[in-house]
Amino acid sequence: MSSVSIDNKTSWRVVVIGSGNVAEALAKALSRAEGVNLCQIFARNEVRGRELAALASTSWSNRVEELAAADLYIISVSDRAVEELSGSLPFADDAIVVHTAGSVAIDAIAHREGGRGILYAFQSFTAGVDVDFGEIPIFIEGDSAAVEERLRAFASKLTKRVYRADSELRRRIHLSGVFVNNFVNHLYAIGSDILSVEGLPFEILHPLIMETARKAICSHNPRSVQTGPAVRGDGEVCRRHTNMLSDNELAQRIYNDITNSIWETSKKI
Amino acid sequence: MSSVSIDNKTSWRVVVIGSGNVAEALAKALSRAEGVNLCQIFARNEVRGRELAALASTSWSNRVEELAAADLYIISVSDRAVEELSGSLPFADDAIVVHTAGSVAIDAIAHREGGRGILYAFQSFTAGVDVDFGEIPIFIEGDSAAVEERLRAFASKLTKRVYRADSELRRRIHLSGVFVNNFVNHLYAIGSDILSVEGLPFEILHPLIMETARKAICSHNPRSVQTGPAVRGDGEVCRRHTNMLSDNELAQRIYNDITNSIWETSKKI
Repeated sequence: MSSVSIDNKTSWRVVVIGSGNVAEALAKALSRAEGVNLCQIFARNEVRGRELAALASTSWSNRVEELAAADLYIISVSDRAVEELSGSLPFADDAIVVHTAGSVAIDAIAHREGGRGILYAFQSFTAGVDVDFGEIPIFIEGDSAAVEERLRAFASKLTKRVYRADSELRRRIHLSGVFVNNFVNHLYAIGSDILSVEGLPFEILHPLIMETARKAICSHNPRSVQTGPAVRGDGEVCRRHTNMLSDNELAQRIYNDITNSIWETSKKI
Repeated sequence: MSSVSIDNKTSWRVVVIGSGNVAEALAKALSRAEGVNLCQIFARNEVRGRELAALASTSWSNRVEELAAADLYIISVSDRAVEELSGSLPFADDAIVVHTAGSVAIDAIAHREGGRGILYAFQSFTAGVDVDFGEIPIFIEGDSAAVEERLRAFASKLTKRVYRADSELRRRIHLSGVFVNNFVNHLYAIGSDILSVEGLPFEILHPLIMETARKAICSHNPRSVQTGPAVRGDGEVCRRHTNMLSDNELAQRIYNDITNSIWETSKKI
């Protein structure tokens, strides 16, 4: 679904606004991308802002009157700050302004002549960890077909996986990410707790965690590689497990609901 | 916790009984291990039995009277078949007989002179996929200290991570594996479903799945890298997500349980 850039020859002047993990990952990737001139990191926090600017070989400012002229402003701040920030900065009139949040609608940015949109990179970013953007899906949305085409061309400089997603679809994509990222991590934590009560280290789970991820990815559909007592309908083992969790009501409820969901959905294959 | 082998110089004659994924992984690893002579694959299913024997450069039989003489018999069959099988085969008197199941007690093997025990490799094995055993934890149990020492020495030929676990502890370890393997895979499936309804392929989730696993493993404790609306206490996003799942009551319940568990446990850190 990626498209050939419609403006390979122009160089994009870009300002990244924010200094969180997404801002860092984008700034570093943009500093290496061809046809991109990362003009500035604009971020309230001076220490962190300067750190990002150094990582991305550009300058930093937190003074509104110093906001650099650019073709694209990427607002990468916490969900709640998008609206206020986008309403208060003196963007160049003909520039596109985008945010990077999975569950914030396009309206959070006030209507403007140059256009507004979204550039949602579907990955969990960590400060200090280098990321290969080439495989990461980027979902774009623009408030006009022209803006969308320009954002598609821009995103194609970072990854070969560019998709269009309006704000409602983007929210569903974000929801799928909550399951495979936030919720999966919580299951890792529960697994770790079960072992640590017995004095066993989290490392014991590492090979199984990696293999589970690898196996699902090699499958066409993770449902087809589902194993365990729930899909086998092994009620005796499931009951014993539930009893073992009697001192942890929250984990017990998760156990029962996922077991039930595995069993019910396996019948449909 | 791994120990120096107490019998580095003896060669273990081993028979693997069964032809499932665990049997395959063990047979292949044993065929490469030093100080191990894999004498036979003993398995009911001839096609699969011969296939495993070829993979592990050994012979195959399914005739009770042909069961090879060995120092160690590894019963690697479905949980329910362990007891019957271990009671019906003519093992060499002084041999140790073990099974490989996470949630089957040692008593499933009848008391015997040579000793009985467990060799539980804590990994999800897939037919046809080669596994590096070196990092995989193996949990051993024996019905005497002497048997346990011998099993520890044997397991050390496969991995540097050998631990002792009695049947009750092994069940808890198995339970932790259900969370990080079976349940995590089900969350991948739910994430995939959410996208497929919108015509988006599972591949979109691949980078996020791998990064989530990597990040947890690099952390000391997965709780310390928890992110998302639940840990932020972002009730608005959580409510919107719950509404989006209104056509899938099972997933909705899982969403609410895990969100609640993340929130409650995050307060304790």
